[in-house]
Amino acid sequence: MGRGDATREIILDEAGRLARRVGLGGLTIGSLARQTGMSKSGLFAHFGSKESLQLQVLDHAIERFTTEVVRPAIKEPRGEPRLRALFDGWLAWDSTEGGCPLVAATFELDDQPGPVREHLVANQRDWLDTIATVVSSGMTEGHFRSETDPRQFAQDLDGVMLAYHVASRLLADPQAAARARRGLDALLAAAA
Amino acid sequence: MGRGDATREIILDEAGRLARRVGLGGLTIGSLARQTGMSKSGLFAHFGSKESLQLQVLDHAIERFTTEVVRPAIKEPRGEPRLRALFDGWLAWDSTEGGCPLVAATFELDDQPGPVREHLVANQRDWLDTIATVVSSGMTEGHFRSETDPRQFAQDLDGVMLAYHVASRLLADPQAAARARRGLDALLAAAA
Repeated sequence: MGRGDATREIILDEAGRLARRVGLGGLTIGSLARQTGMSKSGLFAHFGSKESLQLQVLDHAIERFTTEVVRPAIKEPRGEPRLRALFDGWLAWDSTEGGCPLVAATFELDDQPGPVREHLVANQRDWLDTIATVVSSGMTEGHFRSETDPRQFAQDLDGVMLAYHVASRLLADPQAAARARRGLDALLAAAA
Repeated sequence: MGRGDATREIILDEAGRLARRVGLGGLTIGSLARQTGMSKSGLFAHFGSKESLQLQVLDHAIERFTTEVVRPAIKEPRGEPRLRALFDGWLAWDSTEGGCPLVAATFELDDQPGPVREHLVANQRDWLDTIATVVSSGMTEGHFRSETDPRQFAQDLDGVMLAYHVASRLLADPQAAARARRGLDALLAAAA
C-alpha cells in the first residue's frame, strides 16, 4: 500500500465514523474537512464529489465486511458450520464501534433514488445471496431438509440480525445477543 | 378538533414525510418552512424549537401507529388472533407511503444521545412489551406452550418485520410480504 493509499484508508475510516453519526446523506466534503482538519481542496483531490465520497465510504465498509466477516466464514466447512461462522462474524462486526454502517445506510436511503442507493441494493442482494448459497450448500451436505427455501432462510436470518442491531444499539438490552443466537438456533432446528 | 389543531396535524404529516426523506435529524424549522411554504416564525410559534418539532413528529407517528395498528388488534380475541392482527396491521402500515417512519428513525438515531433518542427507546420498548404481552395472553389461552419466552418471541417478530421493511422498501422484492408471513407462521408453529 502506497502512502497515498494509506492516507485514503485513514480518511475513509474517519468518513465512515462521521457517516454513522450524521448519516451517509449528511456526509459532505465540507463536513469531512471539519472532522479531519484537512483542506476541502485536498479532499476534493482524493474524492472528487460528495456522491463519489459516499460511494467510496460504502465500498470501504463493504471491503472491510468482506475481509472481517465473509472471508473467515468461507474457510469453515460448507453448510451449517459456515452459516454459524457467518453469523458469529456478523454479530462481532455489528457489536464494534458504531455498529454496521451498512445497516444504518440501508434504512437511511431506502427511499432515496440514486447511485448510492443502487450500490446499497447491490450489496444487500449480495449479502442475501451469500446466506442463501451457504444454506443451499447445507442442503447438499445433508444438514438441511430438501424442502428448505434458501431465500426464505436468508430473509429470516437477516431479520434476526436487524432485530439484534436494534435491541443492542438502541435498547442496550443485555439479552440481545443471546436472543439472536436462539433465533439462529430456531431457524437451524426448523430446517434440520 | 379546533382549526389550530387541524393545521398542526397537517403540518406534522408534512413534517413526517420530510423526515422520511432527510431523516429526523435533518428536520429543521427552516427545512419545514421551505417544504410547506409557511413562515419560519409561524412554525416557531407552533413548535418552538427543532428538538420540540422532532419530538412532536415522533409523537404524531406513534399516535397514528396506535390508532391504525395497535387499537384494531386489541379488538381481536387475546393470544394468537390478536398477534396475527398486530402483524397484519404492521405490514399494512409499513407498506404505505414512505414506510414506517419509526423504523427509519430507529436506525438513524441509535447512536445519537438526547431526548429524541430517549423517546424512540421508550416507544421501541412499548412496542416489544405489546408483542410480549399478547404472546403471554396466548400462553394463558393455551395457544402457545408454557415454555414460550415472550421476550424472545418479541425480538424474533421484530426481526421478521425489519427484514420485511428492507426486502420490500430497499429491494422491492415481490416475495417480501409472503416471506414475512411465513416467518410469522414459523414462529407461531415453534411456539404452538
